Amino acid sequence: MSVTGNLYFNGRWQSGEGGQYQAENPATGLPIDPVLTKASEAQVSEALAAAQRALAPYQQTSPVDRASFLNAIADEIMALGDQLTERVCQETGYPKMRAEGERARTCGQLRMFADFVAKGDHLDARIDTADAARKPAPKPDTRYCNQALGPVAVFGASNFPLAFSVAGGDTASALAAGCPVIVKGHSSHPGTCELVAQAIARAALSCHMPPGVFSLVMGEGRQVGSALVAAPEIKAVGFTGSLQGGMALHKLANTRQEPIPVFAEMGSLNPVVLLPQALDSNCTGIAEGFVGSLTLGVGQFCVNPGVVLALDTPELEEFFTATCSALAQVDSGIMLNQRICDAYTQSTEALQNTNGVTILASGQATGNSAGYPAQAMLARTSAENFISNVSLREEIFGPVSLVVVCRDQDELMAAISCLSGQLTGTIHAAEGELDNYQDLTDCLRARVGRLVFNGFPTGVEVCPSMVHGGPFPASTDTRFTSVGTAAIERFLRPVCFQDAPNCVLPDALKDDNPLNIVRRVNNNLTQDPVTR
Amino acid sequence: MSVTGNLYFNGRWQSGEGGQYQAENPATGLPIDPVLTKASEAQVSEALAAAQRALAPYQQTSPVDRASFLNAIADEIMALGDQLTERVCQETGYPKMRAEGERARTCGQLRMFADFVAKGDHLDARIDTADAARKPAPKPDTRYCNQALGPVAVFGASNFPLAFSVAGGDTASALAAGCPVIVKGHSSHPGTCELVAQAIARAALSCHMPPGVFSLVMGEGRQVGSALVAAPEIKAVGFTGSLQGGMALHKLANTRQEPIPVFAEMGSLNPVVLLPQALDSNCTGIAEGFVGSLTLGVGQFCVNPGVVLALDTPELEEFFTATCSALAQVDSGIMLNQRICDAYTQSTEALQNTNGVTILASGQATGNSAGYPAQAMLARTSAENFISNVSLREEIFGPVSLVVVCRDQDELMAAISCLSGQLTGTIHAAEGELDNYQDLTDCLRARVGRLVFNGFPTGVEVCPSMVHGGPFPASTDTRFTSVGTAAIERFLRPVCFQDAPNCVLPDALKDDNPLNIVRRVNNNLTQDPVTR
Repeated sequence: MSVTGNLYFNGRWQSGEGGQYQAENPATGLPIDPVLTKASEAQVSEALAAAQRALAPYQQTSPVDRASFLNAIADEIMALGDQLTERVCQETGYPKMRAEGERARTCGQLRMFADFVAKGDHLDARIDTADAARKPAPKPDTRYCNQALGPVAVFGASNFPLAFSVAGGDTASALAAGCPVIVKGHSSHPGTCELVAQAIARAALSCHMPPGVFSLVMGEGRQVGSALVAAPEIKAVGFTGSLQGGMALHKLANTRQEPIPVFAEMGSLNPVVLLPQALDSNCTGIAEGFVGSLTLGVGQFCVNPGVVLALDTPELEEFFTATCSALAQVDSGIMLNQRICDAYTQSTEALQNTNGVTILASGQATGNSAGYPAQAMLARTSAENFISNVSLREEIFGPVSLVVVCRDQDELMAAISCLSGQLTGTIHAAEGELDNYQDLTDCLRARVGRLVFNGFPTGVEVCPSMVHGGPFPASTDTRFTSVGTAAIERFLRPVCFQDAPNCVLPDALKDDNPLNIVRRVNNNLTQDPVTR
Repeated sequence: MSVTGNLYFNGRWQSGEGGQYQAENPATGLPIDPVLTKASEAQVSEALAAAQRALAPYQQTSPVDRASFLNAIADEIMALGDQLTERVCQETGYPKMRAEGERARTCGQLRMFADFVAKGDHLDARIDTADAARKPAPKPDTRYCNQALGPVAVFGASNFPLAFSVAGGDTASALAAGCPVIVKGHSSHPGTCELVAQAIARAALSCHMPPGVFSLVMGEGRQVGSALVAAPEIKAVGFTGSLQGGMALHKLANTRQEPIPVFAEMGSLNPVVLLPQALDSNCTGIAEGFVGSLTLGVGQFCVNPGVVLALDTPELEEFFTATCSALAQVDSGIMLNQRICDAYTQSTEALQNTNGVTILASGQATGNSAGYPAQAMLARTSAENFISNVSLREEIFGPVSLVVVCRDQDELMAAISCLSGQLTGTIHAAEGELDNYQDLTDCLRARVGRLVFNGFPTGVEVCPSMVHGGPFPASTDTRFTSVGTAAIERFLRPVCFQDAPNCVLPDALKDDNPLNIVRRVNNNLTQDPVTR
């Protein structure tokens, strides 16, 4: 029940044979006990073979059994108690409340998929009955439903040690789809990974799931990660992280003999547009909300508001005053690891030294030089600079935002038009103000997965109508979300049965509808049985 | 109203500046008048820019207007009359009945998508209403619907001059999704392409669609085709054709700065399993059906039954006798072009010379040496050979099938297990016989997009429950079908609106549901309005 440093694959806990390492506490820079292990090539192969063997039995589990498994995982995660949240805090520098909140979200996601999969909507069951009398040719009986795509490799994110990690959204949606999962945990929180894997392993055992339904392997991306993506057993990849990391996996997946989809969510600038009347009516409220969103979790969110766009008005100057005064009070925070902290330091230094960029405010400096602290920062530049200098449109991971000051509405539209794909776009507008900005919403909508009004992009709601994804480079495939029930669609494929006898049909398509799910029968949604 | 040799792009007919050529009659090998033209690089760029400009206005058309456009295309295609079917026959060697049947299917597909898009199901509208009182954080109002992915490049197939060509399934589903389309027509039936483009152009004009909503460019794959796939304006590619062609496009699409999805349907062996009791009870019927399916359209279907798997029983010998006798009566047919005919000749010669392969029967030879005729052929081999020799598992495009004789049930399973992804798999079984072959259905199902019972794979039904696609290498993305209403899903992406005022929401998500579509509101399907 404690961190051992072992890996879980093929239904067993084993010591990794690919090397040793220790987790690090980012608040101190000191190693955390105990010594941990990495998977060897042979151990990754064993995990892959086990996942392949688990595919047939696992995808045949009933929706109800699969829902029980997902709920059992949530129960077991909660049963880990404070041990889990304490390890999260040790490994990430996050405060306890954040760890507890993220745990609640993680368990909530698992239970949401349990409910969803039990309803059977993800099966998208369709039946078109036969018509022997049709001319010129008789119409066959055809039936369609989704089935698991195959074993899925999941890469945990550094910044969500629970919700986008071992039992996070990718794992929950893939398991819900009927796909065995192999997680490569993130080296920034390996002990957390192991504890959550213990919870999943216990749930798999108590729910009689096949060994291989879930594995946790730790190791380097270039070794363990690449081996997973290149393996013929793997049929899809879920990833949350950097553009560079996501594109490396995408490239690898598309140079395989059999190309496979990579669902990489790679962050974005998350532009926030502040219209003048909105600032006029609620300058302080917007400034407070903005600083809160910018500095939440030390800015380490893929939906962190990295760019603000506004017209050059007196209201904007008031916004600057209010924001700078709030930001100056913000304590420095601990970043997740040295690599992220170094990158933040370098990028903010480069920003300060960029022609035409002015630093408006910085947060409090830390009094302590230990660990990996970061100060929040707000900068400004002109739309002209923003449009001409592509480096200003690159994400800096951390609590920094660049305000782009636009001379007029045309320049605002030009600045938005030069943005590449984004996870989110936000507009603050007073009532009726959008009438004067008809094209603005359309222009932003064409570039984002989610459009937020009079709010902030952080705090991604987990629900059926969420889209967490967006046009490239926000994600590799804008047709899918990695948050919400629709995330399951990434890991399903349809299959059609033509004139199949009832005995070979999956339960979802049998005449008498034993799952009692809603099906599209001859183009009408119904739970009724079908007669031939 | 006749073939002119011009190309259609940016809302105008223009003579291509990339070279001249003529269509060829495959029955005679002689050129068909008039002289035709290919697009220059600059003309392809003009088509791309026009498609980009058309995106915003076209995707904002109402479902009803888009349905009218699709129906108008079907009307205009029918209005071309015999001129169209005669040109099809001239360019393909197909008999008039086939041309008329394919025209009916093409128009039927367009009308099906018109009905489908008018219902709004493809929008997948979801609304989760706000809850200001929720703890620990208020729940926002989030709403989700699909929108057009962007301009789509469609590559016509050689073997379906209408149904998988200029106004075929890819075009129909992309236009239904709200995506402008640029078609690169197939050089095997360029006059047919132009006539159909005339129909679409007239429909676009009468329905007041933006110029650029549809373009037809002709030319070489390595020039025009590559330019389309590499263009930043293009957001997805539809292709039906060879493995080599599909993978070339897939590779190109994934080496772009922004990778895009390529939906390539690349054919397959379409294994047909004949179980002993099925043969015992209906040997002649199965043999006749099989020869009909094998030789339909001179075997030029991606779902042509290229492999038969059966146990070594006396019933199989009867099947051979019946099949050979039927096949010997089949006249030679005209293949679509010289390249296809040469490839068929070479591949069937190589098959004859393969160790362990016996030719059982051939169809009639032609009396005429003109054009590109092909004889049907049936061969047999052992499961041992089939398993050990990978070249026997490669598709030969044309009217040839290889019967794999299996010593026992284990060998039958082993032969199926060595198959890669397939569009279809077929099982002939007498009533109750499948009880003795529990694993057979599962094993085949894991490898196919469509499973057919007691029938043949040719004759793809166009309906909501069809799957035309399959695990690689049958298609590049097994999660999608290129036939049936679900084909539209390839060309859509979801977008989420958070706390959006009613005025900026698309009609699909407005409070009062002006489209009167079925929406998922707080997880319940309903057509009711929403109150905030």
